[in-house]
Amino acid sequence: MFKKYNVIVVGGGHAGCEAAIAASNLGSSVLLVTMNMTTIAQMSCNPAMGGVAKGQILREIDAMGGLSGMIADKTTIQFRMLNRSKGPAMWSPRTQNDRMRFSEEWRLQLEQRRNIDFWQDTVKEILVKNGRAVGVKTSLGMEISSDAVILTNGTFLNGLIHIGEKKLGGGRAGEKAATGLTEQLVELGFTSGRMKTGTPPRVDGRTLNYDLMEEQWGDEKRGRFSFSDIALPEEQRCCWITYTNDSVHQTLREGFEKSPMFTGRIKGLGPRYCPSIEDKINRFAERDRHQIFVEPEGWNTVEIYVNGFSTSLPEDVQYRALQKIPGFENAKMFRPGYAIEYDFFPPMQLDATLETFLIKNLFFAGQINGTTGYEEAASQGLVAGINAHQRINDHHELILKRSESYIGVLIDDLVTKGTDEPYRMFTSRAEHRLLLRQDNADERLTPMAFQLGLVSNERFDKVNEKIKNTNRIISYLQKTSIDKDSINPILERKHSSPLTQNIKMINLLTRPQLNIYDLAEAHHSFKEFLHPLNEETIEQAEIKIKYSSYFEKEVELVNKMKKMEDQSINPDFDYSILKSLSKEAREKLTRVKPRTIGQASRISGVKPSDISVLMVHLS
Amino acid sequence: MFKKYNVIVVGGGHAGCEAAIAASNLGSSVLLVTMNMTTIAQMSCNPAMGGVAKGQILREIDAMGGLSGMIADKTTIQFRMLNRSKGPAMWSPRTQNDRMRFSEEWRLQLEQRRNIDFWQDTVKEILVKNGRAVGVKTSLGMEISSDAVILTNGTFLNGLIHIGEKKLGGGRAGEKAATGLTEQLVELGFTSGRMKTGTPPRVDGRTLNYDLMEEQWGDEKRGRFSFSDIALPEEQRCCWITYTNDSVHQTLREGFEKSPMFTGRIKGLGPRYCPSIEDKINRFAERDRHQIFVEPEGWNTVEIYVNGFSTSLPEDVQYRALQKIPGFENAKMFRPGYAIEYDFFPPMQLDATLETFLIKNLFFAGQINGTTGYEEAASQGLVAGINAHQRINDHHELILKRSESYIGVLIDDLVTKGTDEPYRMFTSRAEHRLLLRQDNADERLTPMAFQLGLVSNERFDKVNEKIKNTNRIISYLQKTSIDKDSINPILERKHSSPLTQNIKMINLLTRPQLNIYDLAEAHHSFKEFLHPLNEETIEQAEIKIKYSSYFEKEVELVNKMKKMEDQSINPDFDYSILKSLSKEAREKLTRVKPRTIGQASRISGVKPSDISVLMVHLS
Repeated sequence: MFKKYNVIVVGGGHAGCEAAIAASNLGSSVLLVTMNMTTIAQMSCNPAMGGVAKGQILREIDAMGGLSGMIADKTTIQFRMLNRSKGPAMWSPRTQNDRMRFSEEWRLQLEQRRNIDFWQDTVKEILVKNGRAVGVKTSLGMEISSDAVILTNGTFLNGLIHIGEKKLGGGRAGEKAATGLTEQLVELGFTSGRMKTGTPPRVDGRTLNYDLMEEQWGDEKRGRFSFSDIALPEEQRCCWITYTNDSVHQTLREGFEKSPMFTGRIKGLGPRYCPSIEDKINRFAERDRHQIFVEPEGWNTVEIYVNGFSTSLPEDVQYRALQKIPGFENAKMFRPGYAIEYDFFPPMQLDATLETFLIKNLFFAGQINGTTGYEEAASQGLVAGINAHQRINDHHELILKRSESYIGVLIDDLVTKGTDEPYRMFTSRAEHRLLLRQDNADERLTPMAFQLGLVSNERFDKVNEKIKNTNRIISYLQKTSIDKDSINPILERKHSSPLTQNIKMINLLTRPQLNIYDLAEAHHSFKEFLHPLNEETIEQAEIKIKYSSYFEKEVELVNKMKKMEDQSINPDFDYSILKSLSKEAREKLTRVKPRTIGQASRISGVKPSDISVLMVHLS
Repeated sequence: MFKKYNVIVVGGGHAGCEAAIAASNLGSSVLLVTMNMTTIAQMSCNPAMGGVAKGQILREIDAMGGLSGMIADKTTIQFRMLNRSKGPAMWSPRTQNDRMRFSEEWRLQLEQRRNIDFWQDTVKEILVKNGRAVGVKTSLGMEISSDAVILTNGTFLNGLIHIGEKKLGGGRAGEKAATGLTEQLVELGFTSGRMKTGTPPRVDGRTLNYDLMEEQWGDEKRGRFSFSDIALPEEQRCCWITYTNDSVHQTLREGFEKSPMFTGRIKGLGPRYCPSIEDKINRFAERDRHQIFVEPEGWNTVEIYVNGFSTSLPEDVQYRALQKIPGFENAKMFRPGYAIEYDFFPPMQLDATLETFLIKNLFFAGQINGTTGYEEAASQGLVAGINAHQRINDHHELILKRSESYIGVLIDDLVTKGTDEPYRMFTSRAEHRLLLRQDNADERLTPMAFQLGLVSNERFDKVNEKIKNTNRIISYLQKTSIDKDSINPILERKHSSPLTQNIKMINLLTRPQLNIYDLAEAHHSFKEFLHPLNEETIEQAEIKIKYSSYFEKEVELVNKMKKMEDQSINPDFDYSILKSLSKEAREKLTRVKPRTIGQASRISGVKPSDISVLMVHLS
C-alpha cells in the first residue's frame, strides 16, 4: 500500500524533523514514521532552544535550510543573547519557547512539504538486502520500501523510566517505549550501549511566590536564530531565578539511598554537563547553593519547568526538597522529575556522513548516537538527511569541516572519538571557535547549502548582499579619515584618549570603548552611508574590524592544518598493509575509517609516528 | 506530599474535564490525574462536537456552567444547525473543530481554576475505607487522599487495539493502556464488561481530489453552543461529501475473513449507530453506497478525518478500498483506522447521581458507563462532578428529570435499563423532546444551576432577561392587532390567504409561511419594539408562539406523569417485604434501587401490576 520512498525517517523529534526537511529540500520523497502524530517535535525536556554553542548550531542549521531556528523564533516567549559581555565568538542566542506551539508549528511546517508523507506506527525492524537498508517493517506488520533509512529514535529504544526505586517502561513519561529494533541491530552486528538522561519536575506556577525570586527578563533588543525575515512575537514573558540551599540539599540527601543513580540500578552514564541536582550536591559538596531557573512552559499555561532541578529521587523527596527553595514553599508538582535509560549505538560505528559502516544507506542521527540536546540532535538530522539523499543519488557526500562549523566539530568528535556519556556541544570543543560565530553562520554555510540545493536563491542572494555590504563598510572605514575635532568630544565622553591628528576611521574602531555608531555620530556622511544598511550587516562589519587580528591568526592556523585536513584517505583503505603502524593504530584506523589525515590524527591511540607512516605512504 | 483533596478525577477526557470544572465551580478542591498532561481533552475520534441530540446536550452542559460548548465554539472551523427544515425540537447545532486548539483551550481553561490541581500518573487502585472511596493509588505508588473519586477512564482500561489480525495494547493508537484498576474493582464486587468502538483512517488532504466531491459549507448565519457572549472565529472551513460504491464494498469484503469483527476476535459490542464501514455493507447489503464526510482536522493541518469509514480491517484493505472512493484515487493514509476494545462497568451498578451503589463517594462517568460520544461523556462528567461535591458536603443530590433535559434521559436510561452496547443519545430516546430543545436549554437548566452555585449572577440575569423579553414579545403580539391593509401585500407575497379584517398579530404567526420579521415589516411600532432585543430572544418568542399548542400538550403529558415521577422511593427500600411483587420485579427493583415510581416503571421486567403494589404500599 506504500509507494517506495527515497528516504524513510524513523522518529519525529528534532533529529527526525530536520532529517525529513533536509532530504525533502533536496528533492527526495520522504516518509516520516512516528509512534504518535500528536507528539511530533515534542520538546521532551526544557522548553528552550539555543544557549552556549547550541545557539551557534541553530544558526548553522538555519543557514543550511533547516527549520529549527525559524520555528524557535516564531514560538519564542523570551530571547536572550548569552555572553554579550564577552567576545563575539562567545555570543550565544537562547530562547524560551512555548512548548505546545513549537510542536504545532513543526507539524504544520512538515505538512506543507509535498514530498513528505506521514505514517503513525512503530518501526520494529530495518529491512536489509545485500548489506543495504531497503526499508522498514512496522509493528502493524507493514513492510515499507525505501532507498535509505534514517533512525532517530531518541530515548525510546527500550526506554526505562526511573523515579526513586520505581521503574516504568516508556520513551517519555506517559508514552510507550519502542522495542525490537535494538535487538535486530545487534543481531546485524551493531554494538549497542545504554545511556541515561533526566528531567526535572514540572510545577504549578500558581503556587509559586515570585516575590522571593529574581526576575529575569529577555533582551530589549531582540535577536533571532533565523537569517530569514519572519515576524517575531511582539511580547516577551518574564522568567525567574532562585537558589537551592543547605536545607534543600539536606532533604535531597535523605533520598540518596533510594536513588537509582547511587544504588547502581541505572547502568547508563548521564550527561556530565547537565547533571541531576543529586549529582550536583554529591559532586560539588562544597557549594552551598545551586541556581534554579524558573521557566514558563508557554504563553498561557501555568506549567513551570524547574531548570536546574533534574532528578530521579523518589517523588516525595523531590516534593519536600522543592518546597525548601525560596519561592517554592507552597509549590505543587504536576509531574515528577525522572531519569530515563535508553539504548544508543556508539557512534564510531558511523562514517562522517552519519551512514553506518555495517549497513549501507542506513543513517543514525540524534540521541541514538550518544548525544544530548535538541540542537545536537537537529543538526545530525540535517546532515543525515542531506547525506541520505546524496548517497542514493550518487552525489558527493557532505562532510562539514571542524574549521567551518560546530556541526562539523560535533560529528567529527562523535565518529572519531566516540562517546561513552551523552555528548553535549561546548564552545571549548571547537578549536577554531573564533571563526564559528553565530553572526557569520550564514556566510560560512549558506553558499555551500545553496550549491547543494538546500536553500533558495533568495536566501543565497541575501547572504551575498550581506557580505558585499559588510565589505563596503569596511572599505569605507579603511579609506575615510575622521576629523579629530568632531570625534574628540565623543572620545572624551567614552574615556578614550583624544586624537591629536585626523586618522583613518578603521583605526579608531579597534578601541574597545568605541562602536561603529559612535563613528557615525561624528561623521555625517558615514551616518548617511550606513542608513540604508540593516543592523546585522553593520554589526557584522564591526565584529570583523574589531577582532580582525584574532580572526586572521585563526585563519592562519586553519591553513596550517589544512594540509592534513584536506589530505583525504579512502575509508576502505587496508591498514594491514602498513606494517610500520603500531598495532593499536592499525586497529583503531580500521575501525574508525578516517576520511582525512586530520581525522586520523585525532583518533585516540593514533600517535604522531603513525601519522608520519600514513603520510609517507599516501604521498 | 499531596494535600487531601475533596475530589479526585481520574482521566482528562471530556468526562474528566467537565467533572473537574463542575466540582471546582461548586468550590471543591480537585485533583485531575491524567496519564499524560500533553493529551488532556484529546478528541479521540472525530474532530466535531454536537449534532442530533448531542448538540442539545452541549447546550444543556453550557446552561449548567460546563465548558464543552464554549470551547467548541472557540475552536469551531465550521458551524451547521442540522435539521433546520424540521420542527425546532429537531434543530441540532454541530461544529467541526480544530483538534489541536480544542485540546489546548481545555488545558488552559482548567489551569485557570485555582482549585484544580494536576498530576500526571496512572491510577492503579481506588483506596477504600469502610465501604467509602477515600483516595487513589497510582503507578508511581503514591497514595492520594480525597473525599470522593470520579472515574472517567474512557477506552483506556485494558484497551486493546485491533487492525485486521493484529492486536496492540493501548488506550488510543500510540498511547498506553491502563491496567490494574478493572481487576481491583472486580475484586471489590463490581461487574465489568467489554465494549468496542472504532475510528476511521486519517488521510493526507493534499492527496485528495476535491473536484470529485460535493462541497459542504457551514451556515452563513452562525449559531453557537454557548449561551455566553464569547467571540467566534470569523472564518469557516469547507468540508466535503463523497460516497462509497460497489467497488469500494467489493474491496472491503476481501478483508472480511481477516476482520476482527467477523472472526469473533472482538468480544465487545460496538456502537450500533456508529457502525464500521464493514458493518454497514454487511448489515445493509442492499445499499449500493454510503456517505463519506471529508472533514479537516483543523485550521491549518492537512490531516483529514474520513467520517463514515470507521474500520478495523487490515490496513492494506483499508488503503485499497479508500482509493476507490471518488476523490480518494491517490489518497495516502497517515494512520489506519482501528477498533478498540476496553472495559466498562454496566451502569445499573450506579445510582442516578452516578455514584456506585457498592462504594460510597465513588462516581463513574463517560465511556466507563457504556456510553459513546464526547457529549454523552461530558454531561456525565458534569453530573458526577456536581454530585461528588454535593455528597461530601451533605447537600442534596442533583437528579435531572427526563422531562427537563437530555442529560436526565441519558442517565435515567443508563442506571434504569443498563446497556449492553455503547449507548448513544437520540432525540427519539426523549419522550418529551418537544420541550428539550437547544433553544431553551438555558431556561430549563440555568436557574437550577444558579441555585446550586454552578453559574454566575451574570448568566442567571441573562436568562431571566431572555425569559422576560420573550414574554414581553408574546404579550405584545397577543394584545396588538394588525391592520389588514399593511399585512395583506406580505401575505400575498408569501402565498398565504389575505385578511378580511384586522386580527391580533399572534394569530398570524401560527401560519407556517410567516415569521416574526414579516410582522415587524408590516407593523412599524412592533419593529421599533423588537429593535433593542437580541436575535435569540426574538427566535425564542417565535418558537414559543408557533408551536404553543404542541408544547402545551406535551406539558400536560408531563404533568400527568408527574405523580409517578415525583413520588419518590427510598433507594434503600427493602422490596423483600412486599410479597405481592413478582419475583422478577423484586430482584430488579432491589438491584436498580429506583429513586421514583416513574423510574421503577421503566425497569425492564417490572410490570404495571408491580407498580400498583408499590404505589399502594407507598401511599
